[in-house]
Amino acid sequence: MKLVRYGEFGRERPGLIDDQGVLRDLSAVVPDIAGDTLLPEGLARLRGLDPKTLPAVSGAPRFGACVGGVGKFVCVGLNYTDHAAESGMPIPEEPVLFMKPTNCIVGPYDHVEIPRGSQKTDWEVELGIVIGKAAKYVSKENAYEHVAGYCIVNDVSERAFQLEHGGQWDKGKGCDTFGPVGPWLVTTDEIPDPHVLDMWLEVDGKRYQNGSTRTMIFDVPTIVSYISRFMSLQPGDIISTGTPPGVGLGQKPPVYLKAGQTMHLFIDGLGEQKQTTVPAA
Amino acid sequence: MKLVRYGEFGRERPGLIDDQGVLRDLSAVVPDIAGDTLLPEGLARLRGLDPKTLPAVSGAPRFGACVGGVGKFVCVGLNYTDHAAESGMPIPEEPVLFMKPTNCIVGPYDHVEIPRGSQKTDWEVELGIVIGKAAKYVSKENAYEHVAGYCIVNDVSERAFQLEHGGQWDKGKGCDTFGPVGPWLVTTDEIPDPHVLDMWLEVDGKRYQNGSTRTMIFDVPTIVSYISRFMSLQPGDIISTGTPPGVGLGQKPPVYLKAGQTMHLFIDGLGEQKQTTVPAA
Repeated sequence: MKLVRYGEFGRERPGLIDDQGVLRDLSAVVPDIAGDTLLPEGLARLRGLDPKTLPAVSGAPRFGACVGGVGKFVCVGLNYTDHAAESGMPIPEEPVLFMKPTNCIVGPYDHVEIPRGSQKTDWEVELGIVIGKAAKYVSKENAYEHVAGYCIVNDVSERAFQLEHGGQWDKGKGCDTFGPVGPWLVTTDEIPDPHVLDMWLEVDGKRYQNGSTRTMIFDVPTIVSYISRFMSLQPGDIISTGTPPGVGLGQKPPVYLKAGQTMHLFIDGLGEQKQTTVPAA
Repeated sequence: MKLVRYGEFGRERPGLIDDQGVLRDLSAVVPDIAGDTLLPEGLARLRGLDPKTLPAVSGAPRFGACVGGVGKFVCVGLNYTDHAAESGMPIPEEPVLFMKPTNCIVGPYDHVEIPRGSQKTDWEVELGIVIGKAAKYVSKENAYEHVAGYCIVNDVSERAFQLEHGGQWDKGKGCDTFGPVGPWLVTTDEIPDPHVLDMWLEVDGKRYQNGSTRTMIFDVPTIVSYISRFMSLQPGDIISTGTPPGVGLGQKPPVYLKAGQTMHLFIDGLGEQKQTTVPAA
């Protein structure tokens, strides 16, 4: 299934995209694509519906983030060998974790703000894992049982805020609009192997990132199991699994975003994102 | 006002503590001590009530975290000169920020879990700021307008997870129960100056931390203004402002928590916390 949330920011309604690509309204069935709806039994219920019986949505509504009520947005850093190299960082021996505050979450086609004082706003196309069942001290073997599905995440990052203001990376990861998520939450039945997905990111039509989840250092079950040792995971939590090479910081010389540019992101089976940059409100 | 949340974990009801120390039920007035209730107009409405007209709560219910629906739990590291020194870290030139995931939030008297595999679970008594009005690019001069009040936070930390597993501190800050918050959200009218508060923490009756917010490096308006440059703040967000000297890591030799111990925390005007440590479930 391809689950979505559509409508005005902060007032999104649940929906799904049927086999013909038609957006169907789910708001008579579930309150949101969030929380208990993401439990295995919640998804099984949606899977049991005949999409043709759901109202088709007319017009071209905005798409919101494909998950609502996100409690936690955990990120894995330096999870592609080549990206670690371009960042001048050693290959990590265990997953590097940091957090994006949830205020940064927006829809896949929303504007991305260039923060006040920013000189180094950068992009990162990433495979997002959406948690479907609470996880604490979960083994690698059982980790997939806790995954509802996958989505595209743009882990927008301000490199000076992240690296040049002292302390931890979080400072450069959480500006408003720095977390486009979606368009679709694609359930695991449609993505039997999340480690064979091509992915790319273009800025103004120039392809900067061109990778595949084949080169991830820590795979999905390892990541879910590992994080669950340090913090419990709840339905609707998002884990962003790191970015392949080609970020702005890695260019020689580095290239950063200015207002008025367009990012275009793709991951196999997960759809596309497109964002235009604007000055922070 | 001293606002509280009481009752079963995850199903807390709003309340207040009146001048006589009696717990009064607010659930006929507001749904929770959270979100819009914390806006200046929401607090003004509560302040307009005569507490004697509110039902007294009988028995001795559990106290939950004094804020519900917390979207974000931001922490300032190394914000006391002496604590930076005991941690072997330089005095920061600007606030060091990291995040506690909200799954760690518990009540002030709840048990604190020693995570599986933990050898270095540590304590940190801290002044918590509760945001009352959304803040983005707020000046120091206007910062207090965005503060609803203050509370005690125990920024429980696993030092090996934080410092010895690569990457960012967040890994050692977010285990379940690592964020006792409360017992009271004390509104700003009762704490005209948050920078003159004595604070201490004892473990099994031995006083390890004995400090005052007088020795904070970055004060409350500076912290709120600074964070609002990097991430927008929403009502109910909590900022924990750093700990004075005397954490376990700073002892010679270091001292860490084992299951079966009791932490006792105090901050002037904000009440007390007490937690017993237990093995992680």
